[in-house]
Amino acid sequence: MPDISPTAPWLAQRSSRMTASEIRELLKLLDRPGLISFAGGIPNPALFDMNAFHRAYASALGQPGGGPASLQYSASEGYMPLRMWIADHMAAKGVRCEPENILITCGSQQGLDFIGKLFLDPGDTVVTAAPTYLGALQAFNTYEPRYDTFGGNGTVGLLRANAEAHGSRVKLLYLVPDFANPSGATLDLSSRERALDMAGELGCLIVEDAAYTALRYDGEDLPPIAALDQRRCGSIEESRTLYCGTFSKTLSPGLRVGWVCGPKHLLHRLTLAKQAADLHSATINQIAMHEVALTRFDDQVAMARACYRERRDAMLAALARHATDGMEWTKPEGGLFVWVTLPDGVDGRRLLERAVAEENVAFVPGQAFFPDRSGINTIRLSFSLPDPHRIEEGIARLCKVIRADLPTRQ
Amino acid sequence: MPDISPTAPWLAQRSSRMTASEIRELLKLLDRPGLISFAGGIPNPALFDMNAFHRAYASALGQPGGGPASLQYSASEGYMPLRMWIADHMAAKGVRCEPENILITCGSQQGLDFIGKLFLDPGDTVVTAAPTYLGALQAFNTYEPRYDTFGGNGTVGLLRANAEAHGSRVKLLYLVPDFANPSGATLDLSSRERALDMAGELGCLIVEDAAYTALRYDGEDLPPIAALDQRRCGSIEESRTLYCGTFSKTLSPGLRVGWVCGPKHLLHRLTLAKQAADLHSATINQIAMHEVALTRFDDQVAMARACYRERRDAMLAALARHATDGMEWTKPEGGLFVWVTLPDGVDGRRLLERAVAEENVAFVPGQAFFPDRSGINTIRLSFSLPDPHRIEEGIARLCKVIRADLPTRQ
Repeated sequence: MPDISPTAPWLAQRSSRMTASEIRELLKLLDRPGLISFAGGIPNPALFDMNAFHRAYASALGQPGGGPASLQYSASEGYMPLRMWIADHMAAKGVRCEPENILITCGSQQGLDFIGKLFLDPGDTVVTAAPTYLGALQAFNTYEPRYDTFGGNGTVGLLRANAEAHGSRVKLLYLVPDFANPSGATLDLSSRERALDMAGELGCLIVEDAAYTALRYDGEDLPPIAALDQRRCGSIEESRTLYCGTFSKTLSPGLRVGWVCGPKHLLHRLTLAKQAADLHSATINQIAMHEVALTRFDDQVAMARACYRERRDAMLAALARHATDGMEWTKPEGGLFVWVTLPDGVDGRRLLERAVAEENVAFVPGQAFFPDRSGINTIRLSFSLPDPHRIEEGIARLCKVIRADLPTRQ
Repeated sequence: MPDISPTAPWLAQRSSRMTASEIRELLKLLDRPGLISFAGGIPNPALFDMNAFHRAYASALGQPGGGPASLQYSASEGYMPLRMWIADHMAAKGVRCEPENILITCGSQQGLDFIGKLFLDPGDTVVTAAPTYLGALQAFNTYEPRYDTFGGNGTVGLLRANAEAHGSRVKLLYLVPDFANPSGATLDLSSRERALDMAGELGCLIVEDAAYTALRYDGEDLPPIAALDQRRCGSIEESRTLYCGTFSKTLSPGLRVGWVCGPKHLLHRLTLAKQAADLHSATINQIAMHEVALTRFDDQVAMARACYRERRDAMLAALARHATDGMEWTKPEGGLFVWVTLPDGVDGRRLLERAVAEENVAFVPGQAFFPDRSGINTIRLSFSLPDPHRIEEGIARLCKVIRADLPTRQ
């Protein structure tokens, strides 16, 4: 008998490291006709510039002499013209760097996986916001860390004491500073500075996940933590921040093109991880993304901001109109998400079942976003896909289910 | 002072798991004019069907209604029509399976990484041929296994005793059965059956790396180990073989599209690894690759076989003509490589320096392909890039350097 059966002890031991993304599993079930979905944290495909990508692929394949190179193996570090474009893009945000400070990854998700792979041993501590991005938890979970919480009571002394009590040390401080998934929250300047102070005292790295940074609808851009870090220490080479960027929320997620920006001595290690993991990101996609970024990035970002701003406003207005007593929600300055705290005793998972069955409306229960699986009475609403009219309709339906759920709980 | 400096103990500890691919580092230096390179194990770009890919990308982006989906997030398992094509392709090789037995990966390299990630704990034993594919060693090294050798003295009793002496157990048997990189060797039917016997007795998985399988120039196709496994146990669901396939050597490596085929209970775990690592492979590349595979696979394979067969013949003829006493080499039935054993005392690394400097000819020293870093007097020659005339010229030059190297050693 083979002992590779699903119940084999050595397989069971390893599989505990990974659990399916509830969100992605959920998304598979959301093809119901007429469903109003606030579930997916994905960009609105109507915003994709089909013509620009059409021209970019045709050009990548057709350019005299260079055409076949787009279908060939290429460098693990990534396509140099794209790395140059990204280095300029980072400089415009206050992160002065060279193309050698940029590694191209398959979305920022792959950057998170490589950072976990390189820097986490089982039992190491990762400090995150709570709630935080589920995909980051999944990427890090593979390497079996424990988690602690940034903010609130998260002083350096307490974080260190918690880690020591577990025979652990803090290795990474993971933050989504702008319009975080799922909370919609933005770290103000002093919180960013405080994160740097803490990381310095703890001797750990900061992982700055900038997935939503370009999607700001109100107020002024704040400097990335990576820029503040560089201001303090004078050079990116001395900094402790690994900035994970992506084109997924601005130009297209389907090409899987993101990047990590950081000091060269860390980038070198990440490049070795890339080489071992998949040799390099798809050559043709890097060439095409460079072409589209070069010609269309600013216009596409402006268009996305206008579209999502209107939908965020529609969702906030609908919530103000239809919410029941005891509901609270964030007012995000950007990104794709509003985070709702339900009245006491309302369970987000149970609510989802009822909302889909009774009112054909969907969202993501908040529990999965908490490393400790708390947050039972929270849900994440995305406003990226439905138009403003459907948002109004969907929020009305959702609040109706919440209201119906209330009496049974009191 | 930040302790994330390159000399920080906790960084140094982790970096020992990964070392740069000497081959990829070497390839960066091979832009010298007039150089005849037998170094790169890459397909000949003249074989890429530029028009077919041009049409496929245009169609993926332009199809009514479906266009934007090619730029959107998609399922971690991969694009269903491509998985269906691959399932049929596997069935034609004797591996009966469903699309649910196929996970799309970023080249077969990513399949190897996920298999290591899921199944290897530090100190576990991986059994490989020696020499074997360097990229597999790099992928597995991340997870800190020890290695033992398949073939020669590799009886089950000895492998088990060696593992036990190290407090280890054999988890994976990694084999490239057809025209292996770097040796060019093919496992005959009885060796394949023996591998299955051994894996059964050891209770381990077989990783079948089929990167070169389509590129056969003489003789009959042999059944994949996965097919023999299925014949024994009646169903892929009971089998212990994970088959790693790729389009990199047949249609294009630049799109990074490969696959793993195996029993669903293992595929499910690998899909979770994919989700955590990079969410999914590039949507548009899977759609385009499906289109090209559907319309052009057989013709492209026939063209590649004709091209490479001529070059292999040219290399074997040139070696027969120019070799010095004491040189031995393989006569591969397919693939891209001839493996040369140099006369005693000739060091492949030193020879490379002289060959590049004196005769402008390059190859890969063989040592890197041995888990134990033996094989000092071996080199790998690839015949994929130079045309037959240049192959004759390059082998003549190479043998001249070997001959010049001999007297100093005797």
